[in-house]
Amino acid sequence: MEKTTIKKLLGDYKKLIHHDITVQGWVRAFRSNRFIALNDGSTINNLQIVVNFEDFSEELIKNIHTASSLKITGELVESQGSGQSIEVLAKKIEILGDNFFEEMQTTILQPKKHSLEKLREQAHLRFRTNLFGSVFRIRHAVSFAIHQYFNQNEFFYLNTPVITGADAEGAGEMFGVTNFDLNNLPKNEEGEIDYEQDFFGRKTNLTVSGQLEGETAAMGLGRIYTFGPTFRAENSNTTRHLAEFWMVEPEVAFNDLEDNIDLAEDFLKYVIKYVLENCKDDLAFLDNRFAEEQKTKPEKDRAKEGLIEKLENVIEKRFKRVSYTEAIEILLNSKENKKGKFQFPIENWGTDLQSEHERYLVEKHFESPVVLFDYPKDIKAFYMRQNEDGKTVAAMDVLFPGIGEIIGGSQREERYELLKTRMQEMHVDEKELWWYLDTRKFGSVPHAGFGLGLERLVLFVTGMSNIRDVIPFPRTPKNAEF
Amino acid sequence: MEKTTIKKLLGDYKKLIHHDITVQGWVRAFRSNRFIALNDGSTINNLQIVVNFEDFSEELIKNIHTASSLKITGELVESQGSGQSIEVLAKKIEILGDNFFEEMQTTILQPKKHSLEKLREQAHLRFRTNLFGSVFRIRHAVSFAIHQYFNQNEFFYLNTPVITGADAEGAGEMFGVTNFDLNNLPKNEEGEIDYEQDFFGRKTNLTVSGQLEGETAAMGLGRIYTFGPTFRAENSNTTRHLAEFWMVEPEVAFNDLEDNIDLAEDFLKYVIKYVLENCKDDLAFLDNRFAEEQKTKPEKDRAKEGLIEKLENVIEKRFKRVSYTEAIEILLNSKENKKGKFQFPIENWGTDLQSEHERYLVEKHFESPVVLFDYPKDIKAFYMRQNEDGKTVAAMDVLFPGIGEIIGGSQREERYELLKTRMQEMHVDEKELWWYLDTRKFGSVPHAGFGLGLERLVLFVTGMSNIRDVIPFPRTPKNAEF
Repeated sequence: MEKTTIKKLLGDYKKLIHHDITVQGWVRAFRSNRFIALNDGSTINNLQIVVNFEDFSEELIKNIHTASSLKITGELVESQGSGQSIEVLAKKIEILGDNFFEEMQTTILQPKKHSLEKLREQAHLRFRTNLFGSVFRIRHAVSFAIHQYFNQNEFFYLNTPVITGADAEGAGEMFGVTNFDLNNLPKNEEGEIDYEQDFFGRKTNLTVSGQLEGETAAMGLGRIYTFGPTFRAENSNTTRHLAEFWMVEPEVAFNDLEDNIDLAEDFLKYVIKYVLENCKDDLAFLDNRFAEEQKTKPEKDRAKEGLIEKLENVIEKRFKRVSYTEAIEILLNSKENKKGKFQFPIENWGTDLQSEHERYLVEKHFESPVVLFDYPKDIKAFYMRQNEDGKTVAAMDVLFPGIGEIIGGSQREERYELLKTRMQEMHVDEKELWWYLDTRKFGSVPHAGFGLGLERLVLFVTGMSNIRDVIPFPRTPKNAEF
Repeated sequence: MEKTTIKKLLGDYKKLIHHDITVQGWVRAFRSNRFIALNDGSTINNLQIVVNFEDFSEELIKNIHTASSLKITGELVESQGSGQSIEVLAKKIEILGDNFFEEMQTTILQPKKHSLEKLREQAHLRFRTNLFGSVFRIRHAVSFAIHQYFNQNEFFYLNTPVITGADAEGAGEMFGVTNFDLNNLPKNEEGEIDYEQDFFGRKTNLTVSGQLEGETAAMGLGRIYTFGPTFRAENSNTTRHLAEFWMVEPEVAFNDLEDNIDLAEDFLKYVIKYVLENCKDDLAFLDNRFAEEQKTKPEKDRAKEGLIEKLENVIEKRFKRVSYTEAIEILLNSKENKKGKFQFPIENWGTDLQSEHERYLVEKHFESPVVLFDYPKDIKAFYMRQNEDGKTVAAMDVLFPGIGEIIGGSQREERYELLKTRMQEMHVDEKELWWYLDTRKFGSVPHAGFGLGLERLVLFVTGMSNIRDVIPFPRTPKNAEF
């Protein structure tokens, strides 16, 4: 890739000063028929192009406006004006393609403030805005940091199946996948739908998690991670839910719960540090946006920390590790609980924690990211390792300020008899999961892993508040546009 | 991650000689009640453990066999025997979990030769074999190299939707996604299935490609790539087809067809070079396996090059660039065509090339990877850029020895009127793709991209011959096990 980007040019221009260069991009603004702010998507920063209108035809100048695509050749010089280090004195300007001016006025490309809702309706164009440029460049950086972290730590990337015959994991309602013509469903002799005639010869769904398959791979490769789309057919129209989202699930042979917590903390800090170091311009923009947004809120709802400050605090502090039992004590004794300020009052050990409780622990009590561990077994999944106390399992959740649970994981039950019994107790179909049970039969080992919802992490890092704004094309109830 | 892996230990043991270390893994072999070959999945190489049976209980020794999981502490010493540089003199041995000896004999973990078919039936256990350990470690390396290449070249990773309302692209038959209870389908007043009541309020499918969405992002971010699962509901039971596979699709604003070919060549060479440099042990094993496999074939069907030799040749040679028109000339004039040796004889310009023709060009005529470009427009998709000749489009395919097409791509038609007309001619629904057309209306720019099927590349790099053996849990007609 020999062509230069505006990002590269702005970062390393010294040797090009007074040379002719060629750049391509879109017009963000054209001031006084003289200054073009050109953006090519590589960075939030624009390159200033200086146009001497006498050098160009009136026709050309007239056709340059916001959103126009240009190819410009000119001399790179140090800028005389403030606000930028360099500028290009245009010698040649070429309009690269159509820009229908009238129609553009009805889109979000029109240079004025648009609501996030409107931007979402034109999700195919929002990549052209400063805000979504920053969000999606950071989403990239988060994703790359995840791959790099695991690669450096000898994990192998594993692609678990999206279409699955299993529906036993119970992480949520599943979408069906079929090749049937729904107007003409084949029936068997009992009058039931004959799934044997479907593409896969059985009923199939979209996966809710790659964990169980991931465990089988960790039992051979040692350390694996998945990073792929997962699905929930839940009719939740909230700012926190998507029907299709990306999940990262590491699984490590020979790890116990403490190792798992160590991994989660190290991993999150690595990714956040990577973004702080590699996305300075985008973060500065989002930090500013976040601060402005806070000002519009009632004082009691405002974030205590700025966006960058929050990220720096997370990587500096050791996460507070607290057992579920301790957490319940703290909550039972809290003023909030005693004064009835929780929507769901804490009454006894065994109850599941709600978002308000998690946020109380993180934001008020500890003022730190918190890892809760050793949850009551009755509120957790069948595959979690049973502790000696007979009451709890080796589960863990990482709770972050403003966002609540960002990671959920556990040490897995590696003891065949205990796993099998627990599956029976919880009515999990052993026949369907024969292959999962197999991994406990032939050289079973302690192992642990967790799941991170990518979009939750991107929300945290960008300071955005609606999960639909951190995935390119959100899938939610009644919405699969694009 | 402080725990050491066997890979790390074998790579850097000098400072640990005569120290006690702890390792965990699975027994690959236990010879003479004295030598354990221990593997932890981090590498194909085993660590030799020396057991002095007098130091351990008879009960323990009796329970150590193939597939057992062990935690061993002992002194690391330079090995006296041949075949390994170091070994561990066991002081403490702990069996980590169950290994049901009798049942293990019926699995692929039993130490004897198993067919690839049988290994596929126990896909959850095949990660424990040398062959599949190597294949999936290399699949990881290929994937990581892809991310690293694009990150270094300022591309942004883009997650395009898996569930899509669009079915216009026509890359293949699509799976339906639904939340309906198929036994109880809602009908509208016309007696048709009322998709408005489905989860997304419309008929939805699994994506066949993220390209069209990717283009919208490239129109803002400049350079993007997708890397995610794609689907084909085609009833193809071959060694080359999967119903679910992973695709990589870069898309670059301001690139023309030549830039696109340059990118494809540079990209493929980078990834293959990365694997050659980072997967030496696994490649050596696969190289040997490949050579053995060739010996079982009739001489005329044998590969001309060894596996590693083939990979080295690909990164050294400049890919041969040939227009479709030239290729047709070559094929028309070939002995093969004249003597009727092609199953599908080449008769005239305009015909689509079959695998046999592609392989003739690559393996016999040029003896080099080949890039074919400028295909007849009538055999290509609606979005490809129309050339001046009125007959061809700026399409390109990269053809590799032994595998045929590994990359397919094109410069895209960025001119609104031409695109719209072509969509009408090819009966592509404009209303459904309003958002795609929009990207040609507001600052349209030349751009180009391509698609790489990940599994095809992994096949090429590993020398495996069935695509089901390079994806962890293959999805094929009548098969969605695990």
